[in-house]
Amino acid sequence: MPEVTVLETATASGFDEKLAAARTASLVLATANTDQKNRALEAIAVAIESGAAEVVPANDLDLANGRENGLSVALQDRLRLDAARLASLASAVREIIALVDPVGESVRGRSLPNGVRIDQVRVPFGVVGAIYEARPNVTVDIAALAIKSGNAVVLRGGSAAENTNRVLVGLIQGALESAGLPAASVQTIDEFGRDGAKRLMQARGAVDVLIPRGSAQLIETVVTESKVPVIETGAGVVHVFLDASANEQWAVDIVHNAKVQRPSVCNALETLLVHEDAAERLLGPVLRRLTESGVVIHADEATRALFPDAVAATEEDWQTEYMSLDLAVRIVRDVDEAMEHIRRYSTHHTESIITNDLGNAERFLNEVDSAVVMVNASTRFTDGGEFGFGAEVGISTQKLHARGPMGLPELTSTKWLVRGSGQFRS
Amino acid sequence: MPEVTVLETATASGFDEKLAAARTASLVLATANTDQKNRALEAIAVAIESGAAEVVPANDLDLANGRENGLSVALQDRLRLDAARLASLASAVREIIALVDPVGESVRGRSLPNGVRIDQVRVPFGVVGAIYEARPNVTVDIAALAIKSGNAVVLRGGSAAENTNRVLVGLIQGALESAGLPAASVQTIDEFGRDGAKRLMQARGAVDVLIPRGSAQLIETVVTESKVPVIETGAGVVHVFLDASANEQWAVDIVHNAKVQRPSVCNALETLLVHEDAAERLLGPVLRRLTESGVVIHADEATRALFPDAVAATEEDWQTEYMSLDLAVRIVRDVDEAMEHIRRYSTHHTESIITNDLGNAERFLNEVDSAVVMVNASTRFTDGGEFGFGAEVGISTQKLHARGPMGLPELTSTKWLVRGSGQFRS
Repeated sequence: MPEVTVLETATASGFDEKLAAARTASLVLATANTDQKNRALEAIAVAIESGAAEVVPANDLDLANGRENGLSVALQDRLRLDAARLASLASAVREIIALVDPVGESVRGRSLPNGVRIDQVRVPFGVVGAIYEARPNVTVDIAALAIKSGNAVVLRGGSAAENTNRVLVGLIQGALESAGLPAASVQTIDEFGRDGAKRLMQARGAVDVLIPRGSAQLIETVVTESKVPVIETGAGVVHVFLDASANEQWAVDIVHNAKVQRPSVCNALETLLVHEDAAERLLGPVLRRLTESGVVIHADEATRALFPDAVAATEEDWQTEYMSLDLAVRIVRDVDEAMEHIRRYSTHHTESIITNDLGNAERFLNEVDSAVVMVNASTRFTDGGEFGFGAEVGISTQKLHARGPMGLPELTSTKWLVRGSGQFRS
Repeated sequence: MPEVTVLETATASGFDEKLAAARTASLVLATANTDQKNRALEAIAVAIESGAAEVVPANDLDLANGRENGLSVALQDRLRLDAARLASLASAVREIIALVDPVGESVRGRSLPNGVRIDQVRVPFGVVGAIYEARPNVTVDIAALAIKSGNAVVLRGGSAAENTNRVLVGLIQGALESAGLPAASVQTIDEFGRDGAKRLMQARGAVDVLIPRGSAQLIETVVTESKVPVIETGAGVVHVFLDASANEQWAVDIVHNAKVQRPSVCNALETLLVHEDAAERLLGPVLRRLTESGVVIHADEATRALFPDAVAATEEDWQTEYMSLDLAVRIVRDVDEAMEHIRRYSTHHTESIITNDLGNAERFLNEVDSAVVMVNASTRFTDGGEFGFGAEVGISTQKLHARGPMGLPELTSTKWLVRGSGQFRS
């Protein structure tokens, strides 16, 4: 069966043919055992780490085009692949080999009174679509996660990485074939350009779930235009609230860590709320530590009265995911006003309260409607790796299917297996 | 807090105001404990069972309008509410009181090596939207399920039941207020007509999840037009495959039960596939038992050669969810051809194989991609009540979030609670 599939699918070139080939491949992948999938992943790791001679020239071409098209230096850096980065991509693939295969896991089961046995087990989605921007590492990452969870994947990367992605997908397909799995398990539709992304979003039935990765704008477009169900990995306008009773050292350490350690990620702090009774005690040490690390403070008037170096904040600051060394700061009356601010401006990713008040801690945990709600911990802990999931599939900010850090099981669906012996319903 | 909310929301009349009132109500409901919610449900049960004097005249008006507009007799029957039906609706509400409250249930949790404790717990979605057709029982049913799971709900019933629904929602709101919960926990937007349904589908952010209930066409419209995430409770083109080794008595009983017991529901059988080696042995007894119960057989040529009373099947028959005493029948070469037929025509709801061959049973269970896959059991078992979930929230045919029969937990999301003592990420 795999051989036939490879022959059928390796030549798929039209858009619909590619989706049909993905479906055929998904049927093989769904019943492939863990050993087979791991062998394919090892072959992919080997192909990637020894593929510099093919990847680097294609990547150079993309980089040259990028410079010509005015791609920012930061994005050029994200786009760049060299032998060292390929080695690190290969080792990321090997980390996925080490993860537990979620397919076949029993979720729950019981015997009904009439003797019928029902079992809910994890199964692959089938065909996963991914829409993302000029980051070729995502190509390898999503492909490996999809294979391990038994899903075929159709990739639409950014046009800025088109040449790099084509070569990477070619290496991955060769590795899949060498391991006896269909090449069409991983395909790119970059050659169809923007039209391809649009058609992918319309392909309800042919694609089981769509995962957008990238800017807030990209995710918003996919979420609103897609007829295929979407897993939204979202932006983080993340808040920390320093309550009246907050421990000073914890406040200084957590706020600094949440803002400064890695400002460009979605779990980094964007808005600091401070209880008015703690403002004089805490704002000095907390903000000084931040400004020493180069953070620019955008603050309300009450904060600026205590910390005149701050820039005046505007309405836009409360809505902004800076992803940079900028922080919005506001003094609030109490935990209620803090939670009201959060309800209004949060993207429901992660919020943390620093407090020694048990009642306020429990209210914050219960009443703040975000994927992850914390007491006395850094928002940077919202992460699949930190949560012990092994792989970073993304952080869901929607309420359906998965919420918060996602592991491999979140890339599966379930089905019910029912075993009877002639029972019918009376 | 509840009192203020009631005052604020009881007067909401504009569309956006109603959604805002639902959000405010959802914040109260999310932290209401089980006793409070059960008291409100008991008050609703009492209001419904003693509300005939208000409900019946409104229902008579809808029925008169329905007759004028040519509503079918079957739909008129679905629309009709009398004292006996109101009593049975009230008792359905009391069954929901008896169910376990899913909110707050721990899904999983652990302590990280650094001492941070993480717990994933069930929380309400927030605001649920429901779009359905002229069945006023759904109004009461969805309202009660939403309240028990801590969700506010915005209802768009069919215009054919508009007067009935308005009175029912009034009774429910009065009961909610008497129990100290916000009236706006349950609202109808029927007064906005079709435009209301459209706006509900656009209300991403204001509505957390949308549940369509009704015809395949209604569900298709919601699924393709909605920007709000949808839980699709879908149509069932349900298959039974009689394998070569099928036990005759099981085949006769299961096929008859699956087709005849309640033909109008989604888990009823629509297409029977028969292994060619079993056709002569089984078709006679299986089809005779069906025709004795008034079933019309739509069959392929091979079947008609053995059973000449059958109507000739067309391509359309394989795609049809009859929901009536009609059955499509086809003879296939083997389990592979049976599964190929299912892949092509199934709506991925429920399929069952009747067999004594272990290998074919396991292949069928593993390779058929449906919400529920059975061996030697009637497809009528695909049901929340039969599965032991207590309430019938619907049967999901999508792969995201919930698949197959849904219970109250499927009307919730989760969030992660993180408790630290000053930890930050190094």
